[in-house]
Amino acid sequence: MAKKKAGKQVGERGGNMARYEELSVEELEALRAELKDEYRRYQTMDMNLDMSRGKPCREQLDLSNDMMDALDSNADMYSSEGVDVRNYGVLDGIAEAKELLSDMMENHPDHILIFGNSSLNVMYDSISRSMTHGVMGSTPWCKLDEVKWLCPVPGYDRHFAITEYFGIKMIPVPMTEQGPDMDMVEELVASDEAIKGIWCVPKYSNPQGYSYSDETVRRFARLKPAARDFRIYWDNAYGMHHLYDHEQDYLIEILAECKRAGHPDLVYKFASTSKISFPGSGIASMATSLNNLEDIKKQVQYQTIGHDKVNQLRHVRFFQDIHGMVKHMQKHANILRPKFEMVEDIFEKNLAGTGVGEWTKPKGGYFISFETLPGCAKAVVDKCKKAGVTLTPAGSAFPYKKDPNDSNIRIAPTYPPLEDLRIASELFTLCVKLVSVEKLLKDKKEVQA
Amino acid sequence: MAKKKAGKQVGERGGNMARYEELSVEELEALRAELKDEYRRYQTMDMNLDMSRGKPCREQLDLSNDMMDALDSNADMYSSEGVDVRNYGVLDGIAEAKELLSDMMENHPDHILIFGNSSLNVMYDSISRSMTHGVMGSTPWCKLDEVKWLCPVPGYDRHFAITEYFGIKMIPVPMTEQGPDMDMVEELVASDEAIKGIWCVPKYSNPQGYSYSDETVRRFARLKPAARDFRIYWDNAYGMHHLYDHEQDYLIEILAECKRAGHPDLVYKFASTSKISFPGSGIASMATSLNNLEDIKKQVQYQTIGHDKVNQLRHVRFFQDIHGMVKHMQKHANILRPKFEMVEDIFEKNLAGTGVGEWTKPKGGYFISFETLPGCAKAVVDKCKKAGVTLTPAGSAFPYKKDPNDSNIRIAPTYPPLEDLRIASELFTLCVKLVSVEKLLKDKKEVQA
Repeated sequence: MAKKKAGKQVGERGGNMARYEELSVEELEALRAELKDEYRRYQTMDMNLDMSRGKPCREQLDLSNDMMDALDSNADMYSSEGVDVRNYGVLDGIAEAKELLSDMMENHPDHILIFGNSSLNVMYDSISRSMTHGVMGSTPWCKLDEVKWLCPVPGYDRHFAITEYFGIKMIPVPMTEQGPDMDMVEELVASDEAIKGIWCVPKYSNPQGYSYSDETVRRFARLKPAARDFRIYWDNAYGMHHLYDHEQDYLIEILAECKRAGHPDLVYKFASTSKISFPGSGIASMATSLNNLEDIKKQVQYQTIGHDKVNQLRHVRFFQDIHGMVKHMQKHANILRPKFEMVEDIFEKNLAGTGVGEWTKPKGGYFISFETLPGCAKAVVDKCKKAGVTLTPAGSAFPYKKDPNDSNIRIAPTYPPLEDLRIASELFTLCVKLVSVEKLLKDKKEVQA
Repeated sequence: MAKKKAGKQVGERGGNMARYEELSVEELEALRAELKDEYRRYQTMDMNLDMSRGKPCREQLDLSNDMMDALDSNADMYSSEGVDVRNYGVLDGIAEAKELLSDMMENHPDHILIFGNSSLNVMYDSISRSMTHGVMGSTPWCKLDEVKWLCPVPGYDRHFAITEYFGIKMIPVPMTEQGPDMDMVEELVASDEAIKGIWCVPKYSNPQGYSYSDETVRRFARLKPAARDFRIYWDNAYGMHHLYDHEQDYLIEILAECKRAGHPDLVYKFASTSKISFPGSGIASMATSLNNLEDIKKQVQYQTIGHDKVNQLRHVRFFQDIHGMVKHMQKHANILRPKFEMVEDIFEKNLAGTGVGEWTKPKGGYFISFETLPGCAKAVVDKCKKAGVTLTPAGSAFPYKKDPNDSNIRIAPTYPPLEDLRIASELFTLCVKLVSVEKLLKDKKEVQA
């Protein structure tokens, strides 16, 4: 195959191989027998591989080990503003952490709040506060008959889990290569006051790896929601997570665009260093308008005296500045790029032309999104599992875990070692072919019957 | 003065000095002139001392500096169960952190959940979850007409701030040297289904330093609340924070006592290492029944993937075990004991016999509680402030910041250096005397008028 363009296009269905749907029943049966033999060989390998979550691999974690030396027992434990980071206080984060995260988030430090170890927690807390106290003085959402939320699909399962937990009705909005279907978003938010938010992973989206186009971001900033307490939950989880040095996606910065559009309070923006330093031991932050910040800070002061400032200082001392962080992310990319490319190569080699699968080729982020023939995703995941490879459960990327087409599978290539990933990817494509053949046979026999 | 007994008794009103209330108007006026002269001398000193919060001092923080070396870049970053603490996962905490905290909390590790850096945050989140989702399937509190809470007074201002933030009606319950007035607690919780909880700092209470008696704990475990979703919020913030090696308060362990009493689910118990290692960079935990844990864990999984396991491991590697932590706390005590004793000595020297103040003499914790004559606390705090010493605002230890007698002042001796604390304590007693004389003069003149 020719070198893939690192772009947003999905895998081509054209190619040398026969399109499965054009095969006769006899050909399909022969193919099935062949594939089953191969599948049995995998089953005898007694594998136990996990491709289910977007976790960094050990080599990536090792990149940040030196952070453990950034603050030792002789370190200067005072912040640039003279705060002893070991003691209580400073609700919104030390100045140098705000500066580093502001460079990372492309926002002014005054618009940044530093939190604890998890941006997911910050999002959960934001919704929780809105449930009990509303947004900037609005009616608490728990007092409303119904609260609804827009969910671009496929999307991030943990986002959808939060809204489901709070009993918020989720409305799926199809993703395109340019971002969510903005016609639908605009119409829905303008017409329904019960819609209070939308989940967005605007860059290298989970799971497709799409980045929102300029037009999409511009249209987000110009939304005219019926609900004045509507907020865009802009989870820029992969803002720094490029796979290629010279082919990166750039986003229009949403806070600035909202301000220019005259809607400065429309967005909550989230980020963290979870997949930059250590997941679970990084620092999370939020950027938003001064009005929103004031509303949030005066509430967060009841929740905590302050977050972990020692860890904030540790991160700043380790990365030094945004350039240090960029160089660090290039090391991550050097580990991840071969994994993504290998998976894509195997998909291409085994599936191109068969017409039984499409997949995305992201330039960053943590996932590849795969589309099987309708009705095949669950069966593929099950078949992989039975041969020792755990994938993200089919349907996970949809509200209530229900994929209406049963066709989406999230591929997480980051965690397994390269050789494991190779075997898992080969097995995956085999399972896709086998399940597809079985489906096509069933369809054809139904037509004949 | 004879060496004080380290006990729960308040400062005696008897002594060598004249009882102020027995002085004539002329004597009081002469005394006032004398005290005013002395006060003016303090004002010229241009002081800026802060005794307002229960913060550890720099020397205490230095005790934990070596913790920064407990995990360096070459450290083994795997937990005892083989978990790479640098990566995602393990919602409830690594096994060795649970073991250390379980020894600290006197509970079985299976009953422990490890959280982030702040037990206050855990308490806030517990109430927040109860507001939106109820407790073990009960009606979410936000759906109820009214939620009430019992607040032993004086108490911890940040506790009261949380319940106030959630619109929970706070009912003050007087503290005694044995703990809250249990007759009142028993009667209230049995008769009013709207009462859903009570704030408790059972050991070396904030601000009085009282520890609950055996009878009090036994009665807590035998409460028969009308509300089945009533929980005791047992904030054992100072469980390890003794001032004296050989005179320590011991509490009956509440979870075990609740289990024995047939009410295993009655209590949420909280603790943290905030004033053991670094405030804001410690680890917090909760201990409760398996039923409660199940209810909580299945909700917390929506909030976060996991807390900071690197910091958990860092704490375990530093303290090693509970004995290491006990030895560490003795070093804290060696720093704090002279501060508490000096404050108490100055109070004794300047106020004994005057009848214008009473104070507690705790054997642990972070505070001394001072009672002025009725109606004097605000004025004393103001007078101290004008001479450069910031105290906790009068009324802070009461719900809605309203001390009905305007007599309680929380003294926080831990943070200032010893010499600053000496000056501040002298000034404080001077202000108490001056304000009391002015009050007595006013009272006498009103009687004469």
